[in-house]
Amino acid sequence: MTRTPSTPIADLWPTLPGDARPEAAHRLLQAAVASFAERGFHATTTRDIATAAGMSPAALYIHYQSKAALLAEISQAGHAATLALVCRAAAGEGDPAQRMRGLVEQFTAWHARARTVGRVVNYELHALPEDAYAVVAALRLDIEREVSALIEAGVAAGAFQVAEVRTAARAVTSLGIDVSRWYTDRSTETPEELGRRYGELVLRMLGAEL
Amino acid sequence: MTRTPSTPIADLWPTLPGDARPEAAHRLLQAAVASFAERGFHATTTRDIATAAGMSPAALYIHYQSKAALLAEISQAGHAATLALVCRAAAGEGDPAQRMRGLVEQFTAWHARARTVGRVVNYELHALPEDAYAVVAALRLDIEREVSALIEAGVAAGAFQVAEVRTAARAVTSLGIDVSRWYTDRSTETPEELGRRYGELVLRMLGAEL
Repeated sequence: MTRTPSTPIADLWPTLPGDARPEAAHRLLQAAVASFAERGFHATTTRDIATAAGMSPAALYIHYQSKAALLAEISQAGHAATLALVCRAAAGEGDPAQRMRGLVEQFTAWHARARTVGRVVNYELHALPEDAYAVVAALRLDIEREVSALIEAGVAAGAFQVAEVRTAARAVTSLGIDVSRWYTDRSTETPEELGRRYGELVLRMLGAEL
Repeated sequence: MTRTPSTPIADLWPTLPGDARPEAAHRLLQAAVASFAERGFHATTTRDIATAAGMSPAALYIHYQSKAALLAEISQAGHAATLALVCRAAAGEGDPAQRMRGLVEQFTAWHARARTVGRVVNYELHALPEDAYAVVAALRLDIEREVSALIEAGVAAGAFQVAEVRTAARAVTSLGIDVSRWYTDRSTETPEELGRRYGELVLRMLGAEL
């Protein structure tokens, strides 16, 4: 059986422009993701994170003011990377059905691969400080708007039959997000296989002729 | 706007036969669900739960040995109620497409209404003691088998076109489960409206002629 390890958090950042974080900050982010995913935000202490990163609690504070600051950076980076993926796919080549297929394939595979980050950013939203929550909520709204706009383009082109665009857009993103809950390294489908199958299921759900 | 409050945990039990739990146990279960949903299992203490239920920590131990025992009972009851709902719908009247529609409508509305319980039972699985986990895993497998069997009945009857029954069954349950993550009392669709729309989307996803 092919096992797919969860994508390390550090893999999120090299793709973002202007990243000049020291290696120690990357280790802290990685340790925070693992701790939050395992025990939840509230049960994790800054000492737990520092220890997992091989540092003293004092060394952690050089890079982050609090565990909430770590959660905020993880959540913003995770959402920004997801929005970038969605925008690229929505603006890709082909007709609306082809672009939607690409979007779902990548959105699904991403949530399978980056499932540990996905659990933290989707299930610890309520623990974000208010200003970080506002940034993340705006990114989430943008993701939903991109998906809605692509559905509307498909409806306008006569390719999709959809009664309620908002509910359909919600179902599309929900299917992908929930992958990070149930996908494990013992799952028999690779992230890419799952993406292809979900792409097919979503196009049918949107009433596309296949 | 119509607001839909989350179903209290106590509403799960009156439907189960032979319930003779004293009222204090119900209050403890209710307090445990609220605390686990808000802060996560690991960050919740038995003192938190006792206080929220208006009891002393010593009084809690009359009814439950540990917070893990509370989680186990909540999780088993939540999964048993869900399996009962799925079995009733799958064995209902009508052809496979009608029964699948009913199943999705009820499964979705249930996860919207009982969202607080839903979050706890779906996101704190890893915190269950081993024997309780085995019981819950068996209930989850039964739920997935019921959904798969209904899809297979639809395929056999020529009503559904499905490439991978297991993936499709997973998508059907995943859509419903994830409702408990995103549904709030500010959601504009009632649980029943959302259920009807999801019933429609799922039938299309399964390739039914509508």
